[in-house]
Amino acid sequence: MNSVIKTILERRSTRSFDTAKTVQESLLTEIVKAGAYAPSAMNRQAWHFSVVENKELLLRLNAAVKALASESEEERIRARSSDDTYNFYYSAPALIIVSMSENALYPREDAGCAMENMMLAATSLSLGSCWINQLGNGASENAGVRAVLDEMGVPKQNSVYAALAVGYALKSSPLKDRAHGIVNFVK
Amino acid sequence: MNSVIKTILERRSTRSFDTAKTVQESLLTEIVKAGAYAPSAMNRQAWHFSVVENKELLLRLNAAVKALASESEEERIRARSSDDTYNFYYSAPALIIVSMSENALYPREDAGCAMENMMLAATSLSLGSCWINQLGNGASENAGVRAVLDEMGVPKQNSVYAALAVGYALKSSPLKDRAHGIVNFVK
Repeated sequence: MNSVIKTILERRSTRSFDTAKTVQESLLTEIVKAGAYAPSAMNRQAWHFSVVENKELLLRLNAAVKALASESEEERIRARSSDDTYNFYYSAPALIIVSMSENALYPREDAGCAMENMMLAATSLSLGSCWINQLGNGASENAGVRAVLDEMGVPKQNSVYAALAVGYALKSSPLKDRAHGIVNFVK
Repeated sequence: MNSVIKTILERRSTRSFDTAKTVQESLLTEIVKAGAYAPSAMNRQAWHFSVVENKELLLRLNAAVKALASESEEERIRARSSDDTYNFYYSAPALIIVSMSENALYPREDAGCAMENMMLAATSLSLGSCWINQLGNGASENAGVRAVLDEMGVPKQNSVYAALAVGYALKSSPLKDRAHGIVNFVK
């Protein structure tokens, strides 16, 4: 098995980070570059990556996301938001916010490809990462959330589709069982 | 630069395949496994992969997709479909069709992650690949297209979100210029 496929099979979601250990800017730059080399529908490359390490801003974003979650129609999300320790990005030292302009033809697919590249790049650099979904699906249009995203340099005309928590892992999730019966060959 | 990031930067879309050279089943199996190791929203893994190498079925699928394209509202798509040499999967020797059940929470993002894994796995195995979009966005619900997908073993309850053309490249697209000004750091 080659190292690329090995990395693909070994990638895990990290939800517990060493909060005392920051990530070198050169590594974050490599990760974002990997994201930007993903394919995009009709090569629109309509993405923007905001790499946020400022803890004060991240905590303010957390407060805004928490406030939004407290109004969710989903009981599971409301319940989680009432926890004092709520932190939607798992207190990672860095959060890479992926936003897209309206020029993107298939923003969700494009974001998926860019995110997967970044997750694999992070894994290859011995960093943990986790897809964060709380800023997507309209959350970035919420006034409270948007005010902080503006301060973070997310382009005003963009919507957020995904974010990546990045840092050194304290522990990562074990491999979940893979689904069976999901492949057929037609010769 | 490590081999994973190198592969991410070197991945290209291939639209010209050596049609005389089939792909070993062991390699296709590795590629699909890479896809199935992608993360998915809430770990639903609601995907299915149909690996089709049967040329007669692929050509029948092409005829059905061509007929659908000829009725497109987009002039660009109608024009392309009127070409006698129309082949939506670039005559690749294998087409991996990614379909999702309704259990998927974010089928487009999930498909993006699985597709990117498969494109990188293919690159790492010296194979060319290209994201094929003609079966998504409702095309798999078209009666003519669906009839062939049924024969190909795509689960009846699933919709197609993407497909991957795979084979040995005759030539690959050159690297497109990358967008500038798409990253900001907030320290």
